[in-house]
Amino acid sequence: MIIKGLQIGLALLAYRNLLNSKNRSLAAENKTIHMSLVVVGSMAFDAIETPFGKSDKIIGGAATYIAWCASNFTTVKQISVVGGDFPQSELDALANRGVILEGVQIKKDEKTFFWSGKYHLDMNTRDTIETQLNVLENFEPVVPDSYQDCEILMLGNLVPGVQSSVIKQMKKRPKLIVMDTMNFWMEIMMDDLLHTISLVDVLMVNDSEVRQLSGEYSLVKAAKKIMAMGPKYLIIKKGEHGALLFHENEVFFAPALPLEEVFDPTGAGDTFAGGFVAHLAKTKDFSFNNMKSAIILGSALASFCVEKFGTQRLTEINESDIKTRVQSFVQLVNFDIELV
Amino acid sequence: MIIKGLQIGLALLAYRNLLNSKNRSLAAENKTIHMSLVVVGSMAFDAIETPFGKSDKIIGGAATYIAWCASNFTTVKQISVVGGDFPQSELDALANRGVILEGVQIKKDEKTFFWSGKYHLDMNTRDTIETQLNVLENFEPVVPDSYQDCEILMLGNLVPGVQSSVIKQMKKRPKLIVMDTMNFWMEIMMDDLLHTISLVDVLMVNDSEVRQLSGEYSLVKAAKKIMAMGPKYLIIKKGEHGALLFHENEVFFAPALPLEEVFDPTGAGDTFAGGFVAHLAKTKDFSFNNMKSAIILGSALASFCVEKFGTQRLTEINESDIKTRVQSFVQLVNFDIELV
Repeated sequence: MIIKGLQIGLALLAYRNLLNSKNRSLAAENKTIHMSLVVVGSMAFDAIETPFGKSDKIIGGAATYIAWCASNFTTVKQISVVGGDFPQSELDALANRGVILEGVQIKKDEKTFFWSGKYHLDMNTRDTIETQLNVLENFEPVVPDSYQDCEILMLGNLVPGVQSSVIKQMKKRPKLIVMDTMNFWMEIMMDDLLHTISLVDVLMVNDSEVRQLSGEYSLVKAAKKIMAMGPKYLIIKKGEHGALLFHENEVFFAPALPLEEVFDPTGAGDTFAGGFVAHLAKTKDFSFNNMKSAIILGSALASFCVEKFGTQRLTEINESDIKTRVQSFVQLVNFDIELV
Repeated sequence: MIIKGLQIGLALLAYRNLLNSKNRSLAAENKTIHMSLVVVGSMAFDAIETPFGKSDKIIGGAATYIAWCASNFTTVKQISVVGGDFPQSELDALANRGVILEGVQIKKDEKTFFWSGKYHLDMNTRDTIETQLNVLENFEPVVPDSYQDCEILMLGNLVPGVQSSVIKQMKKRPKLIVMDTMNFWMEIMMDDLLHTISLVDVLMVNDSEVRQLSGEYSLVKAAKKIMAMGPKYLIIKKGEHGALLFHENEVFFAPALPLEEVFDPTGAGDTFAGGFVAHLAKTKDFSFNNMKSAIILGSALASFCVEKFGTQRLTEINESDIKTRVQSFVQLVNFDIELV
């Protein structure tokens, strides 16, 4: 009981700084003491079908989810591309949260990337119904001068060559490069993918992708192989089964919160990534121990994301919600070995 | 770091009593202060095929695994049945560890229960190749008078009617009844199964069985339904994805240790059960907090079980091995939220 109480107490103290601002969108000046965070990824339209319902064409995209999540904690410098059909109101909503959009190209005469998919009953697998690349087809990201102070670079899931092009444009290598990717790129451009992977510090992929990338079924063996490809850290996302963080010979496991309803898993991985990098940017501490906290924060945010379609739930939550959710995670895994 | 060090320190202190005996088989008199533990289940022959190899006909059975594991910590009063072909040396090995075999019937002219199966690559699914019920076909357990002091009753996976017959034979209801079962009984004798479930305090089943039993996909909803059937506690075993403990509105998650090799998962669930009940018998504390510790101990023991065929690994490990493994679990899930 003592340890549990103490740990929760510390958790709350720790998040006080993150969460207790009266003002929901933290003023930019409060964020300048943080590390500069640049996020690259898609901003998109999605149409989603789950066993619980069907969405209209709604706002999606890896960088959208990451920005909504990370802007709870720090300033985000966004790099992406949208078409003329992307609602200005959505860009304004992000700008209001302190997301800097100078690196977001708006191609007036083109259409925004569109994806539609249908989830199976287990919510862990899905079929793609339609993909329209549109503006993503020839996306050439341009890093604005004002982003050259980047200390943490978050590469959301995108064409591996686009991800590496952003790294190349950075005049000074960011202190930490975090990369998300997916099986699709393993199937059609493995060489490009392996090149980008070799350039990053933290790779995050799901368990089946880890197996595909490494050719090893055992996640421990797979992690060793993948860390030999370049990344010093590997995060394995296991959806409802939580996440693993590997670094050298250390391993940390963060559970997913058991939820009564998982309504729409779209963007949960991106949200997780957003929470992870935002915590590191805010705390300016890349130790293994602090990465554990970053993963817990990412997991807590992802557990909100799945409660409604798209980014909806992320737009609703406040500091108090996040605080309560982080507390649930502390309680979920905390055990006190009693003296006997 | 402070919390981590403290928590590990406490974990080690806590397990000192469990583990620091110089003598591998604790003398019976040291165990008399524990709660009396009775275990019911099969003792069997298994023939196992995994992607890593094929075993001969080896010793198996739920009660065998439970006894091997639990006897690290406390006295076990065993109820089971074997044929004349079951090796006396195996019974002697258990007796040497302080397992009381008075309740084990030996049917000289019959054959021991035999199961053979083949695991798929994911090690989470398996096909039964052959089942010979033999002595289990007409098994009528008899609870010896010397077992009537039973305070914790562990019902290993068996015909539900056999499990409930043992409960009925107890003149005084045990303080805690823990039950394991499997999907097979859900398919062929659901009414008997539901009756036995209604009599127990703790039910442990795997995630797909929880879904089958409750008709709910969400484990949170399923847990609520199952706790309404009788058990005050539900443990959901998720194999490589860990285990969940539900009680009223509380939930605890224990991970499985990520292992380089899972050689043979047979008996892992039984071993988990053995560690769980033995910890409760030893500590005489059924609080939710102490059940968490019991689950961690069960998970630690199960992580040894899968390293070799059958009960082999359980016969090899010593206190120091268990101590080190429990420490790995503490490190795996422990996170220190740093003050920022």
